[in-house]
Amino acid sequence: MSSIKPQTLKGFRDFLPSEARKRQYVVDILKNVFESYGFEPLETPALEYEEILLGKYGEEGDKLMYRFTDRGDRKVALRYDQTVPLARVVAQYQNELPMPFKRYQIQPVWRADNTQKGRFREFLQCDIDTVGSSTLFSDAEIITVAAKAYEKLGFKNFKILINDRTIFKGLPNYTIAAIDKLKKIGKKKVIEELTSKGQSEKQVASILSSIDGKKPTEKLTGIFSNLKKMGVPSSQYEFSPTLARGLDYYTGIIIEVTDESYPYGSLGGGGRYDKLIGMFSTKQIPAVGFSFGFDRLMEAMDELNLFPQDTLSSTTKVLVTVFNNDLWEKSIEISSRLRSNNINTEIYLDENAKMEKQLKYADKKGIPYAIIIGTDEASKNMVTLRNMKTRQQEILTQKDLVSKLV
Amino acid sequence: MSSIKPQTLKGFRDFLPSEARKRQYVVDILKNVFESYGFEPLETPALEYEEILLGKYGEEGDKLMYRFTDRGDRKVALRYDQTVPLARVVAQYQNELPMPFKRYQIQPVWRADNTQKGRFREFLQCDIDTVGSSTLFSDAEIITVAAKAYEKLGFKNFKILINDRTIFKGLPNYTIAAIDKLKKIGKKKVIEELTSKGQSEKQVASILSSIDGKKPTEKLTGIFSNLKKMGVPSSQYEFSPTLARGLDYYTGIIIEVTDESYPYGSLGGGGRYDKLIGMFSTKQIPAVGFSFGFDRLMEAMDELNLFPQDTLSSTTKVLVTVFNNDLWEKSIEISSRLRSNNINTEIYLDENAKMEKQLKYADKKGIPYAIIIGTDEASKNMVTLRNMKTRQQEILTQKDLVSKLV
Repeated sequence: MSSIKPQTLKGFRDFLPSEARKRQYVVDILKNVFESYGFEPLETPALEYEEILLGKYGEEGDKLMYRFTDRGDRKVALRYDQTVPLARVVAQYQNELPMPFKRYQIQPVWRADNTQKGRFREFLQCDIDTVGSSTLFSDAEIITVAAKAYEKLGFKNFKILINDRTIFKGLPNYTIAAIDKLKKIGKKKVIEELTSKGQSEKQVASILSSIDGKKPTEKLTGIFSNLKKMGVPSSQYEFSPTLARGLDYYTGIIIEVTDESYPYGSLGGGGRYDKLIGMFSTKQIPAVGFSFGFDRLMEAMDELNLFPQDTLSSTTKVLVTVFNNDLWEKSIEISSRLRSNNINTEIYLDENAKMEKQLKYADKKGIPYAIIIGTDEASKNMVTLRNMKTRQQEILTQKDLVSKLV
Repeated sequence: MSSIKPQTLKGFRDFLPSEARKRQYVVDILKNVFESYGFEPLETPALEYEEILLGKYGEEGDKLMYRFTDRGDRKVALRYDQTVPLARVVAQYQNELPMPFKRYQIQPVWRADNTQKGRFREFLQCDIDTVGSSTLFSDAEIITVAAKAYEKLGFKNFKILINDRTIFKGLPNYTIAAIDKLKKIGKKKVIEELTSKGQSEKQVASILSSIDGKKPTEKLTGIFSNLKKMGVPSSQYEFSPTLARGLDYYTGIIIEVTDESYPYGSLGGGGRYDKLIGMFSTKQIPAVGFSFGFDRLMEAMDELNLFPQDTLSSTTKVLVTVFNNDLWEKSIEISSRLRSNNINTEIYLDENAKMEKQLKYADKKGIPYAIIIGTDEASKNMVTLRNMKTRQQEILTQKDLVSKLV
């Protein structure tokens, strides 16, 4: 009928049910953890006035931003991150919002990035931020929430690397950027990079050994003591004097999360950024936040088998098949009973379909159980329960069926 | 600092926590109902190739669609509804998807509509569709799921109007469109409209009385019988021979939901559309679906007070205040205990803030309870629980506190 090829844009993804429910599983856990610490949901629009976003992410950001002129001749741009919109919200509703404002935000952002690096042009960001507090306690709380979230997601060996941005005071930016790469590319390459920029080998050695010998700042010591009181096991975090992250962005602590069982990159990061949220206000507003790398998280959880079995099969627990036209009322009756016991139940929609076809459907959809009510079962008011994986069947009363599936 | 005015685009909205959590409450109920009947989540990208969407929504649709050329010179468009993307998905993954494919989708869509009519340019769509089945049973199931959803949301007087599109066979489109308005503008205006189009008063009277005297088609009788078996109370639906809805779209049953307690418009609608989902395939694929009018739903639920109290206050149940620097460990201890009992607990982030300021914060955020642990309480291992609304306080053991708040 149509000559249009059904396809998505490069860097954009469909999430079919098997992927979509895994994403929901992760989002639900994150939300629960965030809300258990008093963070509340915020949603901002996908489109903003271009001037709100432009110039906030450096030259590169302006280049990767999706921008266009709408029919009303307004210059608009698609959400590029959730921090600049947060800054706008804080300025726009300053009298309405409680301070500190603790919000979480889980929405897609769009960046026309090079997809060859395994990056996507539409991806979900999951952020928590505490705006309007500069206490060590708020720093420690953000770290605690992150730790709790990774824990609840099932990560066993994650480590929260923590540093204080002020540790690099006096060092030129290119030196800091090089130091940040120590763990990724190794000491030798960092030395090469720094000497190629004109520093002598002696200077470089002195910088590196000074970083190596750094002790936690007073601020960090305070945060570590808070973390302990807040119940974060000391195995879950460590002082990392080489951690630098974004150069202009952070003003205090910086955080990055890695997992030794998943060596393909960090699972999230954040820190204190006291000079950003006030960008649309007349005053500076302190803030600390953390962003979960959602796609990385999904990948790592797949790799480490952290998804529970029922997120891998269908959201539907059981397919009630329909034996024939006379017996489908029986199937409806049992479906209703299962649903009223909070069991996600699907009934096959065609009473004329062969049993084989119905069971194949359950298989293809990944539904773990099927129920068959034939003439025999119906006369005894029993049902046959089939485990779709093992293909084992058992005959049960309706009551036993419910207790088995609930 | 900045001369940029913090504002959103016309027709675009921020959802601060108080609104965002009400939206989540509704979305969660809808998801639960959808999943309880075997519908599974699907997500599609915000941006599609323009050619996928263009020409699918009539001239008006093409005009209201957000379209632009991206940096790679691709013509792209923002999601305008969820049905055309569903059609694309069905064609693109035809070998992967189980058939029937029962999916729900809850994502924003964008339309540059006239905002003066109370319409928004970014709004959430909540759709369920069963693709690949043409049985009466699948029609009845969609209606059943809709009924169950309105019921779970708390609507007491909703009514699902049901008609069969084939009832209008032989009538010209402008006549059908006029009949559809009978309930909205009344008989007199519909007669005026039809006579102004050249029909005699006698012809018009004959058409109207013929519609009035229509009996349910065989298909509808079958569906009504199914609804009864599926446990939908007969008070929740009725045959409505004047209901017409979209003219070219629907091919079988049509559905619209109203509530006599909320006379400001329909709360959702849908029907069977067998000629649309195959648009990117080589064959026609039958489908039936229902779309919940999310903004209307939110408005009606506000109006009818259907939001439970705890969605109207904070997601945080209790604020644990901090008495002084010596006692804040005690506050942390109690916070942890409450959280481990699944009570959303916030601890005040500044141990030097006055108690008055801390309680004001709880008030502003709408947190229903505050806990105070002063020197006295701490020495007895008790806490003071303050009801923020009534301002009543009581002194409790930690154990009683938990049972009180859980």
